[in-house]
Amino acid sequence: MATSCRFAASLRRASLNARAPTRPRRFQPAAVHVRWTGSTSATSEPHQPDDKETVKGAPAPAKAITFTSDTYPDIQREPGFSKLTQEHVEHFRELLGTESAVVDGVSKDASEDIEPFNSDWMRKYRGHAKLVLKPQSTEEVSQILKFCNDNKLAVVPQGGNTGLVGGSVPVFDEIVINLQKMDKIRSFDEVSGILVADAGVILEVADNFLAEKNHIFPLDLGAKGSCQIGGNVATNAGGLRLLRYGSLHGNVLGIEAVLPDGTILDDLSTLRKNNTGYDLKQLFIGGEGTIGIITGISILTPQRSPAINVAYFGLASYEKTQQAFREAKGQLSEILSAFELMDGNSQHIVNKVTGKKMPLEGDHPFYCLIETSGSNTDHDSEKLQAFLEHVMENDIVEDGVLAQDQTQIQELWSFREGISECLGHWGGVYKYDLSLPIAQMYDLVNDVRDRLTKAKLIGDDDSYPALDVIGYGHMGDANLHLNIPVRRYDKKVEKELEPYVYEWVQSRKGSISAEHGLGIAKKAYIGYSKSDSMIKLMKQIKGLYDPNGIMNPYKYM
Amino acid sequence: MATSCRFAASLRRASLNARAPTRPRRFQPAAVHVRWTGSTSATSEPHQPDDKETVKGAPAPAKAITFTSDTYPDIQREPGFSKLTQEHVEHFRELLGTESAVVDGVSKDASEDIEPFNSDWMRKYRGHAKLVLKPQSTEEVSQILKFCNDNKLAVVPQGGNTGLVGGSVPVFDEIVINLQKMDKIRSFDEVSGILVADAGVILEVADNFLAEKNHIFPLDLGAKGSCQIGGNVATNAGGLRLLRYGSLHGNVLGIEAVLPDGTILDDLSTLRKNNTGYDLKQLFIGGEGTIGIITGISILTPQRSPAINVAYFGLASYEKTQQAFREAKGQLSEILSAFELMDGNSQHIVNKVTGKKMPLEGDHPFYCLIETSGSNTDHDSEKLQAFLEHVMENDIVEDGVLAQDQTQIQELWSFREGISECLGHWGGVYKYDLSLPIAQMYDLVNDVRDRLTKAKLIGDDDSYPALDVIGYGHMGDANLHLNIPVRRYDKKVEKELEPYVYEWVQSRKGSISAEHGLGIAKKAYIGYSKSDSMIKLMKQIKGLYDPNGIMNPYKYM
Repeated sequence: MATSCRFAASLRRASLNARAPTRPRRFQPAAVHVRWTGSTSATSEPHQPDDKETVKGAPAPAKAITFTSDTYPDIQREPGFSKLTQEHVEHFRELLGTESAVVDGVSKDASEDIEPFNSDWMRKYRGHAKLVLKPQSTEEVSQILKFCNDNKLAVVPQGGNTGLVGGSVPVFDEIVINLQKMDKIRSFDEVSGILVADAGVILEVADNFLAEKNHIFPLDLGAKGSCQIGGNVATNAGGLRLLRYGSLHGNVLGIEAVLPDGTILDDLSTLRKNNTGYDLKQLFIGGEGTIGIITGISILTPQRSPAINVAYFGLASYEKTQQAFREAKGQLSEILSAFELMDGNSQHIVNKVTGKKMPLEGDHPFYCLIETSGSNTDHDSEKLQAFLEHVMENDIVEDGVLAQDQTQIQELWSFREGISECLGHWGGVYKYDLSLPIAQMYDLVNDVRDRLTKAKLIGDDDSYPALDVIGYGHMGDANLHLNIPVRRYDKKVEKELEPYVYEWVQSRKGSISAEHGLGIAKKAYIGYSKSDSMIKLMKQIKGLYDPNGIMNPYKYM
Repeated sequence: MATSCRFAASLRRASLNARAPTRPRRFQPAAVHVRWTGSTSATSEPHQPDDKETVKGAPAPAKAITFTSDTYPDIQREPGFSKLTQEHVEHFRELLGTESAVVDGVSKDASEDIEPFNSDWMRKYRGHAKLVLKPQSTEEVSQILKFCNDNKLAVVPQGGNTGLVGGSVPVFDEIVINLQKMDKIRSFDEVSGILVADAGVILEVADNFLAEKNHIFPLDLGAKGSCQIGGNVATNAGGLRLLRYGSLHGNVLGIEAVLPDGTILDDLSTLRKNNTGYDLKQLFIGGEGTIGIITGISILTPQRSPAINVAYFGLASYEKTQQAFREAKGQLSEILSAFELMDGNSQHIVNKVTGKKMPLEGDHPFYCLIETSGSNTDHDSEKLQAFLEHVMENDIVEDGVLAQDQTQIQELWSFREGISECLGHWGGVYKYDLSLPIAQMYDLVNDVRDRLTKAKLIGDDDSYPALDVIGYGHMGDANLHLNIPVRRYDKKVEKELEPYVYEWVQSRKGSISAEHGLGIAKKAYIGYSKSDSMIKLMKQIKGLYDPNGIMNPYKYM
């Protein structure tokens, strides 16, 4: 058995940092090489570009970003909101003291300084804000919000501004409250592993801090070099470590937040167990800044695993990937840290765009990437090897390869993480971030492909707008990224996709936004994942905490 | 080194069921052998007695349970609530159809039939209910609640009635809505491990069902043979698996609940990721039935671990137990499933009351019990052995023993799980379930001991009311069970303990109820763990969902 020998090679130790360089990877909107689509409802998955250009071909020219108010002409400025005056600005300047805490476009032209706060990194959303405030303390946030609430001034809370649904940029003239100056780690308990930190701490900074203490932040994202932990919590970010460490609803132990009326919700518990009343902080996890601003979090961080192993394999059908996932859960159990699905087309595109050699010879309809992380390399290797031999011998997997060192780990991951970037190569991509029952998950990709084929919108030459329909994602979390790369945007494609995709998801009780949230992009579609009575109950909560509606208006629902 | 040899013996395989017999352990209130205290504020930890009597000595005579309304004379029946009439009962009888669904003490005397629903298993709380309803469907629950709300009839949701703070029994004449007839497992997805079930399914039944599918319910309790999963979720039960699998806030994926006005909150998602709006279900997790009745849950269940190992060791100081815990987290990491703390006195008491030989020779001020569970016995044994050698060689641990088979696993666990029962041997126990920063956790035990000693209330002969002050608990969760076994109840002891203990906990930002909840027992003390502004916000939520206050009144806050 020649193929199984590929798995028999011994493994070397690889640190967890293999695919997460400790140097912060900050990115600038202007340097983005992915051609983000102008589609109003499509969103992307959270892979965000690296410093180094990995996609072949010239970057798209930086053209002006369309104002969100133009993209969504139906959204009108709420007439009840006040307009900013020079007196308001003076008040904030006195309140915040330092010059750098107020970016003032009211009393003077500051468009250039404000632009990075007005638009998002995907260049899809752009607001008309004239004032940015950067408070340095929870007390300052409280005073800002109280004043805004009393004066009916709308606000947008903003963290690293790395969101994918336009939730962190203004639509009209909302005041941007940016948390970047609240960047202190408040405490870390080495016995319990509980970290308390300001909301504005950058995820990678927090993770590097924890790495020194042999712990790990239970969340990892492509945007880790820029996103802030407060924003992560406000958007209930999912990311790469969810399969292993679970969601933020379980890991976040406490939240400090400021309500619109200035009340400081002091629920910054550092206890794993605390059954004393309604767990109100949960409303702020995934609340997307619509009922308050998170200013601090307390989070349980796990022990960092010294041993990382990665395997990549080819399978004959989607049925086989499900079998492989079940076997991986059964045999790898406590060390399984990622189980990623990629269809054949997605891998051919990465191969074609990057010119990288495919990890496996031969063609397979599906590919999976498995990562294990544990405390003992030898044990983990043994478990992984036994698993791989089992799935090979039982014809679950057709072929596979096991990373031998850090370089190979990164190389294998690049065939998963590079998909999103490569898909933009031909002009645009319609992107959907969905959650579905695992058994039916890939049916959607086939159904959409059939639909576009029947409509004669998909094909190999330039006469067809769409190139292909691609499915990949976090199989372990039943999270599918459905992507349709296109040569050009075409209303006919959009008409075939929507509401079809949403109706399909609704009929399987799936989620139209698995991990990206609602923001402005999905606001209109929440009804496909939540019933009218649920939406009514949510609106009650919004009304309870934010009766004037000043918090992140025009979004969420 | 003779001692370290004790760790060198080879391990045999032991199944997870070792200490959780699959035969349901149901218990009857009258068969309880622990002498529960009549103290109004002390609660017990969740160990509940086994079928077989393990405590030497005669059981306490079954005397009548005091009415809660007599124990708490300050609590008055809410005059706004209607009194039950025969017409009401007729309505419910028609609604629910079957005879067995209505226990009617309104139109006839049914005291005996109603008594088990009116009082709790600890024989501490007793209500005056005259009507018990046992709906069979969510629709029936909805119709019951709507009627009660329209007619201002107060209700108490009741699951297995195994709570420890009096939350599941009525105080006055509230209607008991018991979920026992809603006991269906609705679905299980073998690929994702997601279970959907009625709220009335007994925890052990759910766990046994999952065992057949090679999965495990991510929660384990002494009361598993009687408690219901809906009640577990409503009280946010913690239990023995929290260290490994995390809290219900992370594991519960969806909830179906009925609001007081009859609205069915249909949030029974079977998705691991779903970022579409406020996570309202979280309010019902730990809401203790005060804003609605949970009728169904969807929960993520992990793969069952085939290998269980248990070690028990003695340590010289509390400082050493913290070191041992850090080392265990570092070296055992992903396989660590329990780290329990027992002080020397607690172990002597188990030894004295049960007559069982101490697991270790010699005397140690502290003891710890470590459990690992994983997918490979050999790997786990190797890790555990390496860990034990390390802590022995570095003088962190003084002596230790490793279970060699299932019997020994049970034997070692009995020295942790038997504490609660043995403490009641002398008459009564003041019990506190607290969460504190790990570093300071045991200081409280010393401080309380000093305090009672100074007050001359603790001593070896019968002239002193208190025997000792004992500390033990889930070290991995920073959950301390502070217990004061007494020969007799004495107001002087109570005066030394309260509010001292609560103030001590408050000053360390701890929790006065780590896992037991508030119910009626802790209602008055919530202010020690939550600020006024938090309590105000909680009351807003209560007012929003239950404006008539009919849901589980007189409790929670």
